[in-house]
Amino acid sequence: MPRFFTDHIGKTQARIIGDDAVHIGRSLRMRLGDEIILCNAGTEYVCKILTISNTEVVCDIVSSHKTTAEPSISLTLYQAVPKLDKLEFIVQKATELGCAKIVPFLSGRCVSRPDAKSFAKKRERLSKIALEAAKQSGRGICPEVADIISFKQAVSELSQNDVALICYEKGGKSLNEICFDYAHSVGVMIGSEGGFEQAEANLCVQNGAVLIGLGPRILRCETAPVAAVSIIMSLTGNM
Amino acid sequence: MPRFFTDHIGKTQARIIGDDAVHIGRSLRMRLGDEIILCNAGTEYVCKILTISNTEVVCDIVSSHKTTAEPSISLTLYQAVPKLDKLEFIVQKATELGCAKIVPFLSGRCVSRPDAKSFAKKRERLSKIALEAAKQSGRGICPEVADIISFKQAVSELSQNDVALICYEKGGKSLNEICFDYAHSVGVMIGSEGGFEQAEANLCVQNGAVLIGLGPRILRCETAPVAAVSIIMSLTGNM
Repeated sequence: MPRFFTDHIGKTQARIIGDDAVHIGRSLRMRLGDEIILCNAGTEYVCKILTISNTEVVCDIVSSHKTTAEPSISLTLYQAVPKLDKLEFIVQKATELGCAKIVPFLSGRCVSRPDAKSFAKKRERLSKIALEAAKQSGRGICPEVADIISFKQAVSELSQNDVALICYEKGGKSLNEICFDYAHSVGVMIGSEGGFEQAEANLCVQNGAVLIGLGPRILRCETAPVAAVSIIMSLTGNM
Repeated sequence: MPRFFTDHIGKTQARIIGDDAVHIGRSLRMRLGDEIILCNAGTEYVCKILTISNTEVVCDIVSSHKTTAEPSISLTLYQAVPKLDKLEFIVQKATELGCAKIVPFLSGRCVSRPDAKSFAKKRERLSKIALEAAKQSGRGICPEVADIISFKQAVSELSQNDVALICYEKGGKSLNEICFDYAHSVGVMIGSEGGFEQAEANLCVQNGAVLIGLGPRILRCETAPVAAVSIIMSLTGNM
């Protein structure tokens, strides 16, 4: 059944506006009475279409239930901005694999250093990629792609998680040595192409993060987050 | 230090021929006396360059040691051929993450069905991608990209591994429920875009493979192998 995210959930009816409304009427050629699934904040609503226009689709809510696709942990990926379109790839894969939030930041070795204005445009595109990946993978929420922040801000946010991890190319603990029991929020920080400077790793540790090594093979900066997120989801029983 | 694979390792000297020889002399502009690392069958040789020509680089072997980057298990990825260039992506990531071999095969739902002749050309390209990824990630061996085989052949090969797994979109055990103790060879089979037919999953089980579910979120066919390989490497203490 087609799946959409919407903020417009009422008691008995729900609305879809914008691009998705056009998509339902034109591309999917759906008709009145057809069923769709609407998602909002981790709840799935099975709905029947009442009216379709170019600007709005109105539905009756038939039933609702908590989605079973959301992981038991809230995993935030803090990702140093890589070159080219690698961030798009990372956002797509992190969404499929169950991340709750993706926070891009600038570390000392980031080569690509977009300013706030040019990142605003990029962020719009990244949010669209997250939304499409969330729909396609059957997520109950669409992960937020946060605004770009400084390394210091990222460390501060990272350390607020119940479990805070930084993947460091010079090694550290294995993910399977980390205790995730009772952790609700987990944060994992990954570097860009050049990895992290020693001082950056130190700052993370001073702020309570644990250094993680992803094994003896050198992973590309877009492979590391996919591997780390997959392993964390497996270790916490979410995969 | 630059890193190359070669089959030409003697008692005191080693040779590099072909593209890599050209690369060493022209692109890297290396000189006589410079040190490089040569890899062969899991052993690393620290070498000093003796002579450079366009067809051959001859080196003195300074020292050798078993590479520490190779995992303790021999993991083969049996991958149903996906559409477009996704197989290239999968080969690159599987190599970085430590796979020993990648075996493409055709299942019932494969949309892209290259014949033997057109795949031979593709295989050449895939092998080059594996070689580049092996060099870049510091592998001790370069994984073999096998010739394309039928589903039945793939099942037969899969079942010869100490642990044989098939990732099935309709669910199964979690990877963290699998016992990898004493397993040397592990095989994991992943579907193409449409996943597997019930009869295909059944045939795998009849041949001793275990059905694996990769969680409640629907992973793209190129995400599933990266996630599965990462998790297996973590669970076996190789990441």
